[in-house]
Amino acid sequence: MNPVKVGIVGASGYSGEELVRLLLRHPGAELAAVTSRQYAGQTVAQVFPKFAHYPRARELHFSEPKSGLLAQAAQIIFLALPHGVAAEFAAPLLDLGCQVIDLSADFRLKNPATYQEFYGHAHPAPELLAKSVYGLPEIHRARIKSASLIASPGCYPTGILLPLIPLLQARLIKHNNIIAGSLSGVSGAGRKPEVDYLFVECNESARAYGVLRHRHLAEIEEQLSAAAGAGVVLQFTPHLIPVNRGILTTLYLTPEKPFAGESEMESLGRQIAGCYQAAYANEPFVRLLDARSLPDTKNVAGSNVIEIAWRLDPRTGRLLVLSALDNLTKGASGQAVQSMNILCGFPETAGLI
Amino acid sequence: MNPVKVGIVGASGYSGEELVRLLLRHPGAELAAVTSRQYAGQTVAQVFPKFAHYPRARELHFSEPKSGLLAQAAQIIFLALPHGVAAEFAAPLLDLGCQVIDLSADFRLKNPATYQEFYGHAHPAPELLAKSVYGLPEIHRARIKSASLIASPGCYPTGILLPLIPLLQARLIKHNNIIAGSLSGVSGAGRKPEVDYLFVECNESARAYGVLRHRHLAEIEEQLSAAAGAGVVLQFTPHLIPVNRGILTTLYLTPEKPFAGESEMESLGRQIAGCYQAAYANEPFVRLLDARSLPDTKNVAGSNVIEIAWRLDPRTGRLLVLSALDNLTKGASGQAVQSMNILCGFPETAGLI
Amino acid sequence: MNPVKVGIVGASGYSGEELVRLLLRHPGAELAAVTSRQYAGQTVAQVFPKFAHYPRARELHFSEPKSGLLAQAAQIIFLALPHGVAAEFAAPLLDLGCQVIDLSADFRLKNPATYQEFYGHAHPAPELLAKSVYGLPEIHRARIKSASLIASPGCYPTGILLPLIPLLQARLIKHNNIIAGSLSGVSGAGRKPEVDYLFVECNESARAYGVLRHRHLAEIEEQLSAAAGAGVVLQFTPHLIPVNRGILTTLYLTPEKPFAGESEMESLGRQIAGCYQAAYANEPFVRLLDARSLPDTKNVAGSNVIEIAWRLDPRTGRLLVLSALDNLTKGASGQAVQSMNILCGFPETAGLI
Amino acid sequence: MNPVKVGIVGASGYSGEELVRLLLRHPGAELAAVTSRQYAGQTVAQVFPKFAHYPRARELHFSEPKSGLLAQAAQIIFLALPHGVAAEFAAPLLDLGCQVIDLSADFRLKNPATYQEFYGHAHPAPELLAKSVYGLPEIHRARIKSASLIASPGCYPTGILLPLIPLLQARLIKHNNIIAGSLSGVSGAGRKPEVDYLFVECNESARAYGVLRHRHLAEIEEQLSAAAGAGVVLQFTPHLIPVNRGILTTLYLTPEKPFAGESEMESLGRQIAGCYQAAYANEPFVRLLDARSLPDTKNVAGSNVIEIAWRLDPRTGRLLVLSALDNLTKGASGQAVQSMNILCGFPETAGLI
Repeated sequence: MNPVKVGIVGASGYSGEELVRLLLRHPGAELAAVTSRQYAGQTVAQVFPKFAHYPRARELHFSEPKSGLLAQAAQIIFLALPHGVAAEFAAPLLDLGCQVIDLSADFRLKNPATYQEFYGHAHPAPELLAKSVYGLPEIHRARIKSASLIASPGCYPTGILLPLIPLLQARLIKHNNIIAGSLSGVSGAGRKPEVDYLFVECNESARAYGVLRHRHLAEIEEQLSAAAGAGVVLQFTPHLIPVNRGILTTLYLTPEKPFAGESEMESLGRQIAGCYQAAYANEPFVRLLDARSLPDTKNVAGSNVIEIAWRLDPRTGRLLVLSALDNLTKGASGQAVQSMNILCGFPETAGLI
Repeated sequence: MNPVKVGIVGASGYSGEELVRLLLRHPGAELAAVTSRQYAGQTVAQVFPKFAHYPRARELHFSEPKSGLLAQAAQIIFLALPHGVAAEFAAPLLDLGCQVIDLSADFRLKNPATYQEFYGHAHPAPELLAKSVYGLPEIHRARIKSASLIASPGCYPTGILLPLIPLLQARLIKHNNIIAGSLSGVSGAGRKPEVDYLFVECNESARAYGVLRHRHLAEIEEQLSAAAGAGVVLQFTPHLIPVNRGILTTLYLTPEKPFAGESEMESLGRQIAGCYQAAYANEPFVRLLDARSLPDTKNVAGSNVIEIAWRLDPRTGRLLVLSALDNLTKGASGQAVQSMNILCGFPETAGLI
Repeated sequence: MNPVKVGIVGASGYSGEELVRLLLRHPGAELAAVTSRQYAGQTVAQVFPKFAHYPRARELHFSEPKSGLLAQAAQIIFLALPHGVAAEFAAPLLDLGCQVIDLSADFRLKNPATYQEFYGHAHPAPELLAKSVYGLPEIHRARIKSASLIASPGCYPTGILLPLIPLLQARLIKHNNIIAGSLSGVSGAGRKPEVDYLFVECNESARAYGVLRHRHLAEIEEQLSAAAGAGVVLQFTPHLIPVNRGILTTLYLTPEKPFAGESEMESLGRQIAGCYQAAYANEPFVRLLDARSLPDTKNVAGSNVIEIAWRLDPRTGRLLVLSALDNLTKGASGQAVQSMNILCGFPETAGLI
Repeated sequence: MNPVKVGIVGASGYSGEELVRLLLRHPGAELAAVTSRQYAGQTVAQVFPKFAHYPRARELHFSEPKSGLLAQAAQIIFLALPHGVAAEFAAPLLDLGCQVIDLSADFRLKNPATYQEFYGHAHPAPELLAKSVYGLPEIHRARIKSASLIASPGCYPTGILLPLIPLLQARLIKHNNIIAGSLSGVSGAGRKPEVDYLFVECNESARAYGVLRHRHLAEIEEQLSAAAGAGVVLQFTPHLIPVNRGILTTLYLTPEKPFAGESEMESLGRQIAGCYQAAYANEPFVRLLDARSLPDTKNVAGSNVIEIAWRLDPRTGRLLVLSALDNLTKGASGQAVQSMNILCGFPETAGLI
């Protein structure tokens, strides 16, 4: 079978580079085009010497991002661009018959008004919002299969949605009292030359940011509300910690039905365990941890796996759920390749294990 | 004025070493005795070359920990020992007329039953619990002044209690719905040769631990309950992150009176600001941040300052409070020296600025 | 073709874990036995949750290290044990017909007297020293193909030998004036609970150690001397820096023939470039960098590649050569798997790209 | 006694911030002016909340850098500016009667031709080169006392010069065969928003840079040549490692007189020890380590101390000398304050211990 030809627009940032890594070794895909204004004319191997052992990396040159050329070169195009910019590329590429997997936030919201509220300007291609599929394979696999435009979720959303959606769908937790505290590695900020992300500013530092209104809140709430069948308002606090890759999320939840005493706790515990088993036991990229283990970012670094663990607290009556993932893999590029695998009929783990 | 002679039992761990650092440069104290089974016979300068520029560090030898000799050498004794061990030293030292500042958890609880519940064995000197003063200067300054046994609080308690106590005393928040997520640097685990705290296991790692029942929960709840005049049950989740020093705490709180709309939010905001101003405006070691800044562990590293910031969230109706401190300074040894300054009638900032 | 059955003795240390990682995904090998005294009875997935997505990791249990059972289960046995211990396992396994790839230093020296001098005790199985092949594939490929006992080189030796051997063989540098300064990540110290390797002791620290007489000096000098046809005495200074993985080596060399002026420098440069091209242009795991790039440990992390760059210094007349590799992959387990590939007739890159 | 009024031009970079830290707590100096184009109008406490507990930090505002105002406000001016820019400020400030302590490289060379060769443009104020004193107090104390323009040495020079100058002056080592390998923390690159110094680019990375011709080579060679009484050509290789602060330098030296056998080695060892004792035994900021210890950047972080250790290698006949210092303190701002103390007749350790 001929490999599927794929292209990456914006391949010089961290998620772009991670896409390059995953696609160079993918058994069913051929990296046919990579764009970068900064590096146009250089080979992938010159820009990223670490990929130089792939023959393809020594042949393939970065080019200027031009839709026509991209559509000639590749069938599937990944957009690894800042939000706002991605939307400009999606429409012409779709018109030219490409399938587009967008890693930005541009097509993740269904409601253009929410986009305007959170991003401060009107959506540049509102007609495409209806068309796009939210690319969380464990939740929307069926729709991804036939999508032409996939809005691949980012790192915070993935770490919050996968642990919460089954619980909300099963009505095991209250939808109106959800708190998420997340710790993110610095690659989440992108390869941007800003003082805040210098080594000396991040090393030996732990700090919260975007405390009340992080941009990705909107898409998280939209997805949670759909799962809950009711409007979810999330308390979400991201923190920056000195690791390269990884997001750890601690969720503070209230069981729908209060529990008291050991037997009620055990019974609720069985329901929660059953809920997660039903949702994820056969998912290749969800690792449900047992009572002895807790998620750790170092155990998912470089992998497309999300770790999930939970605990019932008999003292407070709350349910704690914790998750860990690599923000560049399951939280960005790995997840996008997982969607590509579904789209192309490849085994879902192709190139990801 | 003659300097006060001070001794440190257990001076080779991280908080012991931090006491050595602070006391060597203290204008009113003379380091008269340091003990360590492992290093007995060596000078402070040999064990810690970094202090070798202090003449005192080149003269003073580590000795075996013996109460009689300690009481001869020093008036004030700091105990930097594991819990359980500290209690054994306190009684004889007090009998010999010393004032004791204990950095362990041994005398922080008033209720021996709670001690047994959390530490798994009966308290070794329950009669001293009544006598001890909880050494949080900003809260218990008056009682510290005349104490003979000070139970100096640890890092997590300090980072949670200082932001919460004024709010609870002013009845501005509900006492029965408090959630604390804390991130701790690795020195909090002590200088123990355990695989979990090896560089390779901590670097590039973020993980929760002690999720439901961390040992310091008991003393935090006892102090919060006293401030609230009601039993507080705290949800507390500590996380380990790859920094040497520092604890960042994010508190999720519910205002006693719900607020809606901008004017109610502003009015509540003024009350909170006023409450913190009244409590801490004149405290030399509490830094109340304004609306533009958030706490960052790197801004308190090596200092005895705790940073506090707060935000009202109009979307969720919650109050978020964040704090940062250095777990070895304000969270351990700096705070203990602050108590010593009060005890001795020194300026409270002596040796700490 | 049936997969080759392989076993790992001592699979719970860092290089053992790296072997597990590489062999679980190897297309031609089946991980048939792993031993660990500490973890006997548990599955690989329980001990290393990060491998739990491999079905094999969920089935395979750690066992006690017993030669008889190992020989029944597997054809090729990797020894990831401390030096001295490895030698005890090699002899019985060889007698039972296994092929042994030893990652310790036990069989790397040809001369038992040198072993005694550097390790402080007589070699436990001197008769095997003659039989063993030094497992540096780029240099000893032909002999590895038919070896029954492979002494796989460690991290410092690999980072020094690969850049130097071609230059010495071509008589381009003086053999008696070689200086190597190396920087090592902390995983090189193994998963040992020692205070020196705690996070807090290594983070924000850079320090030299083993300054005059590191243990691996002996094998490096033996190999260099063989290449030079003369006794090489190496100046070698290892340093510990706060990274998990990686070794960076800077070599200070004196060209055999002094050069002066641009044309002599260019001519010598062409000879050096030609020497490296001849030696490594077709090696899949040697990346010769061009004049714009220098080795960086982050570009080889998790990969079996060694990066090499060189510069002639017209001011000092010296030749500088720099190399970077991942101490756990090319510097330990990846290199061992590379030898296994040669031994089994697999493509040399199988499971390593 | 009235405090000396001091000003800092360029107080928002890392060495500027370190000057602020040291001068705010200095017993004899009053911080009277700080300039920063970016922060003009804000108080020191607003820009650096971590200094907010100093009353002076809450009063003092950053201003635009104007010589006239600076000269009115302060007697001593520190220049913490990029090279080239510093020179423009020095002349008018000197004319207005200030004493200037420059932390840039602008006045460290005596020979304007060398400046042009290394910096690529003519020196902007060559007449001041003759006037300036190289501010290495341990070497040039007498001249610093009466200087009006002090060229305070940077981090690499200090870590190389202090260990080498006594040996060269005593003719104990050959001047024409010196190799220095240095490891630097990232703050040495300054607070510049460049991709190369982002957290993700530096963390888990070790790399050499400026391999053949680092800019500070010129001043190091000029000072070494003066000490040796002969032209020194230095082999110097800087490396970047993931720590905030600290420089570790390993020097490979050849004794002037070869040694063989234990008794010659001991005799030479006594000479070296005597040489260092004579030079530094009474220096408050030089810590000569004994045979059991090696320099470690973490033992000098935040301090003005340089650690020095040495070893004779009987196998190679070389002398190894190692040093560690904090690049922002002894390697920049601490050293500048030390010079100020000399200039003002303060105890040399004032504000630095």
